[in-house]
Amino acid sequence: MTTTTLPSKPARIEFWFDFASNYSYLSAMRIEEATRRLGIELAWRPFLLGPIFSAQGWSNSPFVLQKAKGDHVWRDMARQCAKHGLPWRRPSVFPRASVLPARIALLGSEQAWIGDFCRAVMTRNFALDEDINDPESVHAVLHGLGLPADQVIAEALSEAHQGRLRAQTQAAMDRGVFGAPTFFVGHEMFWGNDRLDDALAWCAQP
Amino acid sequence: MTTTTLPSKPARIEFWFDFASNYSYLSAMRIEEATRRLGIELAWRPFLLGPIFSAQGWSNSPFVLQKAKGDHVWRDMARQCAKHGLPWRRPSVFPRASVLPARIALLGSEQAWIGDFCRAVMTRNFALDEDINDPESVHAVLHGLGLPADQVIAEALSEAHQGRLRAQTQAAMDRGVFGAPTFFVGHEMFWGNDRLDDALAWCAQP
Repeated sequence: MTTTTLPSKPARIEFWFDFASNYSYLSAMRIEEATRRLGIELAWRPFLLGPIFSAQGWSNSPFVLQKAKGDHVWRDMARQCAKHGLPWRRPSVFPRASVLPARIALLGSEQAWIGDFCRAVMTRNFALDEDINDPESVHAVLHGLGLPADQVIAEALSEAHQGRLRAQTQAAMDRGVFGAPTFFVGHEMFWGNDRLDDALAWCAQP
Repeated sequence: MTTTTLPSKPARIEFWFDFASNYSYLSAMRIEEATRRLGIELAWRPFLLGPIFSAQGWSNSPFVLQKAKGDHVWRDMARQCAKHGLPWRRPSVFPRASVLPARIALLGSEQAWIGDFCRAVMTRNFALDEDINDPESVHAVLHGLGLPADQVIAEALSEAHQGRLRAQTQAAMDRGVFGAPTFFVGHEMFWGNDRLDDALAWCAQP
């Protein structure tokens, strides 16, 4: 008697992030390399933290609202970036508006350039201390990737694409996302860059 | 010409914790073994999170106030305990009152029994789901360690010891502590059980 084994679905991790989120930066810079190495499928899921914080009754990032926590976070970021070998400059504006790059990341989430685009925007925010929401800035990033920047931006701003980011953010909230980054492996939710390795390890479970 | 090297001070880590804090449980169970192995001096620093949360305008733990975060934290704890090989049962009361064991830990923070006491109280809270503030519960813990329980409890409740825990909590706030566990290596502050290994590694720096 032979046993028929169905081919198992490749493991898959969803990476929910906001370009304004500093801990999302830490994950964004290494998740693609890690998932490739481990043979895990990666789904980029840009969303906006703002509406989620608002729904919790917060007018801003907790790193701004809670002074002691904010003081710690910037020191922590310097240490974490040193540990992971990532460039770091504390943003002079925090949190930065991130709607336009989020719209573009949503538009391109299934495209080959998504990883490079996300890392480039994150690098602008957290290593170069540059605006990331200005159309010129986004244009420069897209152009640097060899993409038709005007066309991509026009599509991201089109009526057809309106509402998709809002829907994505609502989907995050509906699934219990309360901060970023957040990872899903199936229904299993992991919050924070500190859980990236655990989430990747979870993918290896049968 | 010879170079005179002063004997270097042994590395030292301060562990600020609350017996009510579930992430403090994770650290409390392994920090003594880790510091012994690494030759690092360990200072136990019990304090109360309640007044620190109050000062931030919170009436309770953020894990209670923020439903989505609370839902995640209990799932996270189950995974973290499995990862570290620690027993875990979600407390039916959270956060538990922890004033009495905190007073006793403060009284005994320089004693040989401090580690065993802290682990026993934490185990009651997070593995056995038992009250930790009841004098009978504390008595049983002290008695189980072969200590003169009545005498220790009386001393912890004495007028001379009154105010020390309040002062310790104020000292935490003054140093920027906003959650637990928090670690200090000199002036370097690390928040959260997820930073315990980083804090220990920091001790090895010249």
